[in-house]
Amino acid sequence: MRAGNNGLFVPGPTNLPPQLRRAMDRPLEDHRSPDFPNLTLGLFEDLKRVFKLDRGRVFIFPGSGTGGWEAAITNTLSPGDTVLASVFGQFSHLWVDLCQRQGLNVQVIETPWGEGAPVEQYAEHLAADTAHKIKAVLVCHNETTTGVTSDVAAVRAAMDAANHPALLMVDGVSSIASIDFRMSEWGVDLAVSGSQKGFMLPTGLALVGASEKALEASRTATCPRCFFDFADMIKANQDGYFPYTPATTLLHGLRASIDLLFAEGLDNVFKRHNRLAEGVRRAVAAWGLTLCATAPKWYSDTVSAVCVPEGFNGNDVVSVAYARYNLSLGVGLNKVAGRLFRIGHLGWLNELMCLQALAGTEMAMRDIGIRITAGSGVGAAEEHYRQTAAPVALQAATALKV
Amino acid sequence: MRAGNNGLFVPGPTNLPPQLRRAMDRPLEDHRSPDFPNLTLGLFEDLKRVFKLDRGRVFIFPGSGTGGWEAAITNTLSPGDTVLASVFGQFSHLWVDLCQRQGLNVQVIETPWGEGAPVEQYAEHLAADTAHKIKAVLVCHNETTTGVTSDVAAVRAAMDAANHPALLMVDGVSSIASIDFRMSEWGVDLAVSGSQKGFMLPTGLALVGASEKALEASRTATCPRCFFDFADMIKANQDGYFPYTPATTLLHGLRASIDLLFAEGLDNVFKRHNRLAEGVRRAVAAWGLTLCATAPKWYSDTVSAVCVPEGFNGNDVVSVAYARYNLSLGVGLNKVAGRLFRIGHLGWLNELMCLQALAGTEMAMRDIGIRITAGSGVGAAEEHYRQTAAPVALQAATALKV
Amino acid sequence: MRAGNNGLFVPGPTNLPPQLRRAMDRPLEDHRSPDFPNLTLGLFEDLKRVFKLDRGRVFIFPGSGTGGWEAAITNTLSPGDTVLASVFGQFSHLWVDLCQRQGLNVQVIETPWGEGAPVEQYAEHLAADTAHKIKAVLVCHNETTTGVTSDVAAVRAAMDAANHPALLMVDGVSSIASIDFRMSEWGVDLAVSGSQKGFMLPTGLALVGASEKALEASRTATCPRCFFDFADMIKANQDGYFPYTPATTLLHGLRASIDLLFAEGLDNVFKRHNRLAEGVRRAVAAWGLTLCATAPKWYSDTVSAVCVPEGFNGNDVVSVAYARYNLSLGVGLNKVAGRLFRIGHLGWLNELMCLQALAGTEMAMRDIGIRITAGSGVGAAEEHYRQTAAPVALQAATALKV
Amino acid sequence: MRAGNNGLFVPGPTNLPPQLRRAMDRPLEDHRSPDFPNLTLGLFEDLKRVFKLDRGRVFIFPGSGTGGWEAAITNTLSPGDTVLASVFGQFSHLWVDLCQRQGLNVQVIETPWGEGAPVEQYAEHLAADTAHKIKAVLVCHNETTTGVTSDVAAVRAAMDAANHPALLMVDGVSSIASIDFRMSEWGVDLAVSGSQKGFMLPTGLALVGASEKALEASRTATCPRCFFDFADMIKANQDGYFPYTPATTLLHGLRASIDLLFAEGLDNVFKRHNRLAEGVRRAVAAWGLTLCATAPKWYSDTVSAVCVPEGFNGNDVVSVAYARYNLSLGVGLNKVAGRLFRIGHLGWLNELMCLQALAGTEMAMRDIGIRITAGSGVGAAEEHYRQTAAPVALQAATALKV
Repeated sequence: MRAGNNGLFVPGPTNLPPQLRRAMDRPLEDHRSPDFPNLTLGLFEDLKRVFKLDRGRVFIFPGSGTGGWEAAITNTLSPGDTVLASVFGQFSHLWVDLCQRQGLNVQVIETPWGEGAPVEQYAEHLAADTAHKIKAVLVCHNETTTGVTSDVAAVRAAMDAANHPALLMVDGVSSIASIDFRMSEWGVDLAVSGSQKGFMLPTGLALVGASEKALEASRTATCPRCFFDFADMIKANQDGYFPYTPATTLLHGLRASIDLLFAEGLDNVFKRHNRLAEGVRRAVAAWGLTLCATAPKWYSDTVSAVCVPEGFNGNDVVSVAYARYNLSLGVGLNKVAGRLFRIGHLGWLNELMCLQALAGTEMAMRDIGIRITAGSGVGAAEEHYRQTAAPVALQAATALKV
Repeated sequence: MRAGNNGLFVPGPTNLPPQLRRAMDRPLEDHRSPDFPNLTLGLFEDLKRVFKLDRGRVFIFPGSGTGGWEAAITNTLSPGDTVLASVFGQFSHLWVDLCQRQGLNVQVIETPWGEGAPVEQYAEHLAADTAHKIKAVLVCHNETTTGVTSDVAAVRAAMDAANHPALLMVDGVSSIASIDFRMSEWGVDLAVSGSQKGFMLPTGLALVGASEKALEASRTATCPRCFFDFADMIKANQDGYFPYTPATTLLHGLRASIDLLFAEGLDNVFKRHNRLAEGVRRAVAAWGLTLCATAPKWYSDTVSAVCVPEGFNGNDVVSVAYARYNLSLGVGLNKVAGRLFRIGHLGWLNELMCLQALAGTEMAMRDIGIRITAGSGVGAAEEHYRQTAAPVALQAATALKV
Repeated sequence: MRAGNNGLFVPGPTNLPPQLRRAMDRPLEDHRSPDFPNLTLGLFEDLKRVFKLDRGRVFIFPGSGTGGWEAAITNTLSPGDTVLASVFGQFSHLWVDLCQRQGLNVQVIETPWGEGAPVEQYAEHLAADTAHKIKAVLVCHNETTTGVTSDVAAVRAAMDAANHPALLMVDGVSSIASIDFRMSEWGVDLAVSGSQKGFMLPTGLALVGASEKALEASRTATCPRCFFDFADMIKANQDGYFPYTPATTLLHGLRASIDLLFAEGLDNVFKRHNRLAEGVRRAVAAWGLTLCATAPKWYSDTVSAVCVPEGFNGNDVVSVAYARYNLSLGVGLNKVAGRLFRIGHLGWLNELMCLQALAGTEMAMRDIGIRITAGSGVGAAEEHYRQTAAPVALQAATALKV
Repeated sequence: MRAGNNGLFVPGPTNLPPQLRRAMDRPLEDHRSPDFPNLTLGLFEDLKRVFKLDRGRVFIFPGSGTGGWEAAITNTLSPGDTVLASVFGQFSHLWVDLCQRQGLNVQVIETPWGEGAPVEQYAEHLAADTAHKIKAVLVCHNETTTGVTSDVAAVRAAMDAANHPALLMVDGVSSIASIDFRMSEWGVDLAVSGSQKGFMLPTGLALVGASEKALEASRTATCPRCFFDFADMIKANQDGYFPYTPATTLLHGLRASIDLLFAEGLDNVFKRHNRLAEGVRRAVAAWGLTLCATAPKWYSDTVSAVCVPEGFNGNDVVSVAYARYNLSLGVGLNKVAGRLFRIGHLGWLNELMCLQALAGTEMAMRDIGIRITAGSGVGAAEEHYRQTAAPVALQAATALKV
């Protein structure tokens, strides 16, 4: 029995807004009723606005981001097809692994962990592929392992420069609805997200945006698929239904999530993430520590991976934070295991919540002997938040009832 | 705006018990925390008790029953493998369709809709297959299209009689946790269920039981798979974790569901379903109507498919019931479309709830002109429930506070 | 462990709509925040619309109906004041008892249980009181003990005919928001209700409407009071606050409740209650039983008190219904104990729910040996509901998705 | 639309534990059912353990603390009775005001705001009252206006020293279940609490502990009462029922609350409050500010009232904290209005939550120009929490799943 709330600052799942929790807390229902499309048809339309997708479709599958990767791949490619991908963290690695297990031939660009997608190398591979053997170009938009964000538009520009017809597929699991993502403008053909990150919901939905070009490709792609099949979905979705029983409570949660995103305004959501993330970065600097992301252009607004000094293990920070202070942080994965810990800062979040994460992190770091000054990071973040807070007329503020 | 509760009597999703709803209504959490296995390890064990599986494993995938079918098939078979299956309703049909799309060669036994799995024909096919080309035998335990339950033990006996080494795969989506199912005793190798039927939860989990023989088969089977891969699950599950973010709120719901099933006692759960279903059948008889199930041995305890008289359309019963009385029934699907309507009676259910469904059905049938006597079915069911109710000492009962 | 939902058909608390349950399921909050009045000021206004009160105020106290009675009395009367009241059930009796314990002198008109407020006798007492010693006239609008509704407008007419200046106080606990109540039109000065009846919420709020005349009286009345003091409330309420911590979650529930009532339309709410109640009455007639209410003009649309035949005890019906079928009915109270049982039919209710109550009641009555025909009452109610259901174009209804 | 959670740090209502929220989120029920006492009888017993009351009763009224004050007074005293009380804050003032409005004669000991109950002056009054005109001695255990805790045992000792037979009545609204309170050991006759402080629930229940002596007094006391009458409650409570409809959902919440308190252990709950409060006090010292409480012996473990420097208005801190950072603090009331702001730290709380409050407070103070160092208070509190945290074996902690 631990008194008080858990401080949830892993890079997903995120904190669940009370409105979204409530929206899902409802009786079950007949997913074939005449009223059901009143819920679903609007979701399909509004998801396109979140993905900034003009044409095409966003599919809602039961599943997680991994399922979304699988759906994107199997619906648009055929066994033996070649794809181009870069690996600079655990999740970009896993997507490549999935491709290989689905029988694809993956050209892997190994990239230093701490950097984002290497645009120049993409460009070289694409230029070299004059036979257009590459059928798809994969980019991880936000790599949560290292806290870096890639420049998707630049990859698209490289493809255009090479006049390359491959599909552009983006892992937007930890970016979409938190970091600006422009599916149509960037010419993204397949974009994968999940319910448990920027959408602030429990895990359970894989969201897959598909451009018209991707939908066209799905008509001839021969990777075996059924549960994740686009065609079955399209047929049922057009009337507001699903080919098998959908997760109705999550769909209601998704409705509330999108309403919440639109009420704040997508651009405001992105700005809020940036402002809160910058406070965290100020704290890291005040501690005298560095991020895993090697340059500001890579900084992620949804997760910060903080390197621990030589002689310390990032896992210990995470373990002590959880065991002593009920604070959930993320450990380093794979190549960066032990070298860092991660603070997730996405979704339903404000200044107070970030400061809580920073204060708990300070205690845990000091507990294991890392020499930082208690309160230093919190104070630096406070100053950033104060200086960037919306101005409030004191007169109005003091209308507070005594 | 419709006042009052919807009467949910489709054959899944079922009514959500308040305890289960509450169990899922919680903050999100870190699925990699040291405390997480306290939840999950018990689930894996207890699911085996629900499946009556001595050895082997039950996998918990995000997904629906369809995903469970796909997991069962792709983990244990290889492209081009032959499977034997029978089709006697929409769901047995869809599983066969999935097999074919996954590249399997399906020997289909077409069976009259209204009957269950044809044991003799299974026996014939198995006896004929002396080369053991058949790698798996598929049986739909409970076909919700027609309200029939198959004799899985008899199919196993036929396999044993033929000394056939194929895997026995059972669709238990609408039977497990509602109708007696004995995975080990019946020699079932793969059993598929979902969260939204006998487990009384929202859709979102595919539950797949696998015998040791099935797990052995998964080591060499070559159907491509990743999201639904057994090996990834086994590796993570053994410590209580998952290869990707699991649907944590549903896992807490599953914990509450299993607790509820065990508190009532699995055998009592089965008896309750049988008793409630028999009341519905008495009502159908009192109306002078017939079931789609052609003989008592096929009667399903989780859903009754009621044939409408010549000249009427079962869909009209369903439509009027919903539009006028907020009662959700199931329509006839595929071959039996129009010829029947379906009353789901599974999950969180008691006498009063069944009587409500029957009363609403009576109104809807009379509304479209079917000549049944108002109150006749309800009265017949009431008498069955009264006669089979647990005796209550009136003295004790009247301890009621005035 | 009892599977399935409880059938709640006591005359309050009522069934809780999912929307209202959700509205209350929220974090706690600072009841002195600048945002709090955004919630409360609208409530005060909208409650007046529900009470049909043009001027004056509706107070929201923590408490139950009993607290509301106490608030109405103590704020507007002084020790030793004379009030006129009639007793025709347990609740009209209890209000008189409360008046006496608060030091008032009560002229009690004993009235047969089964009738409503005796207008002629009120007229006689008022005519006789030429000295205007009577300071308040008390009327129970809906007596849940016997299922009768009084004619409040007629009592007002009697007061006007006598030119009597007393305050008119009405117990509207089980009528307001379910049965038409017109505070201003009927010249009611104090009207008491609670959250757990027509407002479909948990117990916890006493709602007290006060006319301007009642507010005027409160300035000089000397009954001691503090917790229930109007003046403290008025002072704080005008800015949207309360003199002590209010039950914030119930206030959010009240917001949702009023929204629900307005969405359906108050007059439609009243019609629905009447239609559903009439179905129950048809069932009682079909059973060959009688109501406690002695004439149609007294019939209550929120509760039916059903007399059991000689030789039977109404409590046994209630006990058996609960013990065997998880159906909650109300027993007979005080003078009518044993002679009847009560079916509450108010709040969040539709046809299916009423039919469920009737089916369960049939089983319980037959269980203890009352000779009624199984299904007879249900059938009679079904026919009433069918004949009065909103017409639905079958074409539209069959748009149902197969 | 404000993203992220509100930081609720007023001195009640407190943060609502998810378990308690869930426990209240349930269907309504018949409060006269045979099963209802299974809930209530245990509550009555367990509340005595929380109040540390050996004999006597704890009453559960719908209401707030104010209602509890009224119940304590009106049940045990008669109009014109003399009571002795001290005033050292808004709430001790309001209780005196209530007594006066209920017709009692109050001997008021005016006490400096910032100190607790003045034991010596109580002793003088009691010694002087040789005629035993004083019928009750009132003490506010924890005055939330100023953040001071009184020494109730010392007041009892003073009464005993004077051999005075008066009843000892204690306002424990913001202490019971958070700060050690020993009703029987301290000879307290009436103790008042509410659901929204240490019990961590929404407002709605007044909890009133009564010793056997108090119950004896209630048999002859003549203050008018009905809603809050002990005798009606006792009669119904002994079988587990209530004289009027109780707030059933809050009763389920209370069950969960007591379970939570017992699971942690009452003494551990008190220690946790002390430790968390001490962190807040370290922060105040680090800021160079002072508490309103004038000496450590008065320090409250549930609320800290922090004085702002000359030239600043405490209300501005509160206003800015709310408007800019969604942080809810308490303002100064009455005599100390403007001179201080208050941080509530009671109920469902841990280190991270307190640090969040402190961080937000730092920002708000700096925003209005108070010269404190950003991060200084947070850092001081962190160090206190670190040094007093339960030791965790790092080996065990690092069992964390990577």
